[in-house]
Amino acid sequence: MAIITLTSDLGLRDHYVAAVKASILSQSPQAILVDISHEVRSFDLHAASFLIRNVWQQFPLGTVHVIGINPELTARTPHVAIHYLGHYFIGADNGIFALIFEQEPEEIFEITLPQGDDWTFPMKGVFATAAAHLSRGGAIEFLGQRVHSFNQALLPAPSLEGDLLKGHVEYIDHYGNVYCNISKSLFEQVRKKRRFNILYKRVGFAITKISNYYTDVVEGERLAMWSTGGRLMIAINGGTTMHGGGAAGLFGLEVDDVIRIEFYGDPNSEDDFQD
Amino acid sequence: MAIITLTSDLGLRDHYVAAVKASILSQSPQAILVDISHEVRSFDLHAASFLIRNVWQQFPLGTVHVIGINPELTARTPHVAIHYLGHYFIGADNGIFALIFEQEPEEIFEITLPQGDDWTFPMKGVFATAAAHLSRGGAIEFLGQRVHSFNQALLPAPSLEGDLLKGHVEYIDHYGNVYCNISKSLFEQVRKKRRFNILYKRVGFAITKISNYYTDVVEGERLAMWSTGGRLMIAINGGTTMHGGGAAGLFGLEVDDVIRIEFYGDPNSEDDFQD
Amino acid sequence: MAIITLTSDLGLRDHYVAAVKASILSQSPQAILVDISHEVRSFDLHAASFLIRNVWQQFPLGTVHVIGINPELTARTPHVAIHYLGHYFIGADNGIFALIFEQEPEEIFEITLPQGDDWTFPMKGVFATAAAHLSRGGAIEFLGQRVHSFNQALLPAPSLEGDLLKGHVEYIDHYGNVYCNISKSLFEQVRKKRRFNILYKRVGFAITKISNYYTDVVEGERLAMWSTGGRLMIAINGGTTMHGGGAAGLFGLEVDDVIRIEFYGDPNSEDDFQD
Repeated sequence: MAIITLTSDLGLRDHYVAAVKASILSQSPQAILVDISHEVRSFDLHAASFLIRNVWQQFPLGTVHVIGINPELTARTPHVAIHYLGHYFIGADNGIFALIFEQEPEEIFEITLPQGDDWTFPMKGVFATAAAHLSRGGAIEFLGQRVHSFNQALLPAPSLEGDLLKGHVEYIDHYGNVYCNISKSLFEQVRKKRRFNILYKRVGFAITKISNYYTDVVEGERLAMWSTGGRLMIAINGGTTMHGGGAAGLFGLEVDDVIRIEFYGDPNSEDDFQD
Repeated sequence: MAIITLTSDLGLRDHYVAAVKASILSQSPQAILVDISHEVRSFDLHAASFLIRNVWQQFPLGTVHVIGINPELTARTPHVAIHYLGHYFIGADNGIFALIFEQEPEEIFEITLPQGDDWTFPMKGVFATAAAHLSRGGAIEFLGQRVHSFNQALLPAPSLEGDLLKGHVEYIDHYGNVYCNISKSLFEQVRKKRRFNILYKRVGFAITKISNYYTDVVEGERLAMWSTGGRLMIAINGGTTMHGGGAAGLFGLEVDDVIRIEFYGDPNSEDDFQD
Repeated sequence: MAIITLTSDLGLRDHYVAAVKASILSQSPQAILVDISHEVRSFDLHAASFLIRNVWQQFPLGTVHVIGINPELTARTPHVAIHYLGHYFIGADNGIFALIFEQEPEEIFEITLPQGDDWTFPMKGVFATAAAHLSRGGAIEFLGQRVHSFNQALLPAPSLEGDLLKGHVEYIDHYGNVYCNISKSLFEQVRKKRRFNILYKRVGFAITKISNYYTDVVEGERLAMWSTGGRLMIAINGGTTMHGGGAAGLFGLEVDDVIRIEFYGDPNSEDDFQD
């Protein structure tokens, strides 16, 4: 029996998440439900896509991911079920899939199940029905009509200007850790073993090395490290939004702020940087 | 194996909910536990009853609903297990059942299980034991002594004064959506296809139609629609308490505030209202 | 299939808890996951140990408890799996086990599994792997190397000075209830049926009896009672941090504040105290 993950801005205070689970379990009693988050900032496609992007592949093949951000059915945002690298994704085609996928999906179906009484609450209605069906091993073809594309949305890419690599802040977590859209592979490719300064809003706080552990620096000190997803992260060892501020609070960083990396020195020279 | 739902004001920060789950799983290892909410406002019977009323029937027949609001056993609030429309409800008879049920339950039993060490924490004590028993298919008769009534509590009903239907705000969700105690069936029965103004605290913001979707109005605009439970809901398209305010914040609405609907024009005349 | 409990400061807003669950379920698809709390104050070993201490023993024998507080692997804080009174505990040996256990554990193993890509996120990495292994009935010996001690940490004990018993505040829950480190057995042993005053920060608010129920005092009144774990708790009947303040807020009590109990009168005299 497949796992079904749930991501939404429904919150945990009201009865909405329970209604979705009741609907799924009524149709697929053995389904294993895992919440990714129900506290995504309301209507924030980018935040939702960040969370799903960083976790979906860690679930087993065959997992069904239900996405309840801006799920309303409109002429421009049909409900779809997508088969992608052995997983299933269900949601409104409002651009979020373009923010999650890095290649073409195997199959895309526009869901044509009757909307029923729950048309204003698709997660409990057609998304739950489609997820229950897939979790029971049902064929994706039964959910609707095959289509061949989905709506595009731009995940802004880092840019390279000479020796300057420019990215931006993608997400700030509840510790105040700052996730950037610069991947380790791009960084190393541009860097060619040169020295570098990671620069951001707050002048005078450049970071000049990548740490392996938070504890590579003293408590309260800033650091950069690779997230488990392989993206650049700026953090404070022992800092949190509750304890006098994580990196985001201390440096005044917000989503979409620019992060610059200046490279200098001789390429491929040996230096004291430990990867 | 039956589903057991949990509703309480225990919160998610402390170990209390885990203690309840440990107790249930120790006695019914295969039980499927679903949280309705543990963030009900403390001691708020009305909020708890609103959540349960809107979700219990979406669970499969045989589901056991454990209610941990004001659960203390007193002479006036015995612990009871109730069989109602094929579901089971367990809690203290503090009036909440009168707020949930719309007709007479099949069976009511006063729980006479020994209170044990957990008498100050009934959800972990007798409620967990009773729920585990029922979830394993045990007979409700084994839980105690049959009784024939439960404590009454008043869920204030809407009133009709000539062409004016008066209800009140029952619940405000985390988006700031405002739920009223006016049902679609009552509304249509009074309306007789006439035009209407939905009026509330903030003068000059009457709503004159019922929308089917949030997106029937432009972003930031007010609307009325029927909730999935069939009650009148006042909302803002794209508004949330986090983004400059949902309907509750913008219009200063609070639980128990009056909502008035004035009907006018000729009954059963055709008009431009689209249902 | 064993239950796996999770305790951390990962929060519920980000994707971190889902990543841990994905990792466990990929390796042990039938595992039953129960969250103790993911809202422990960041880096707060004492708060985490309080929660686990009060709930672990309520789970069935064989349960695996994964502890994600300060989980980083350092030379002084090895990752360990511990067999204790029929349960398993997994975490970094940062002192937390000394705060949870009251006697010597059966077996301690230093985990020597390869750290893999998740070395910065041990809950998702080796902790998940070790927990999945144990939940499938795997032998603890396979996880690493047997060791014979763990790091000590001091859980400050109450002190007795003549007729004065001094303890401190261990934890404050989301209702504002104040948990002290004074056990019922110590209290009774010192008390010898004498009268007593429970004294704390706010002068003039001594408590002179132990209640059995919140409702033993009128609403809004202070009381002392024994927690389900048998520790002294100071509370307000019907008080919460959201409703004008629980006990912590009203009396200005914080973690580590001193609680004093003065005993007076004749030992073993009968009095009006009802236990």
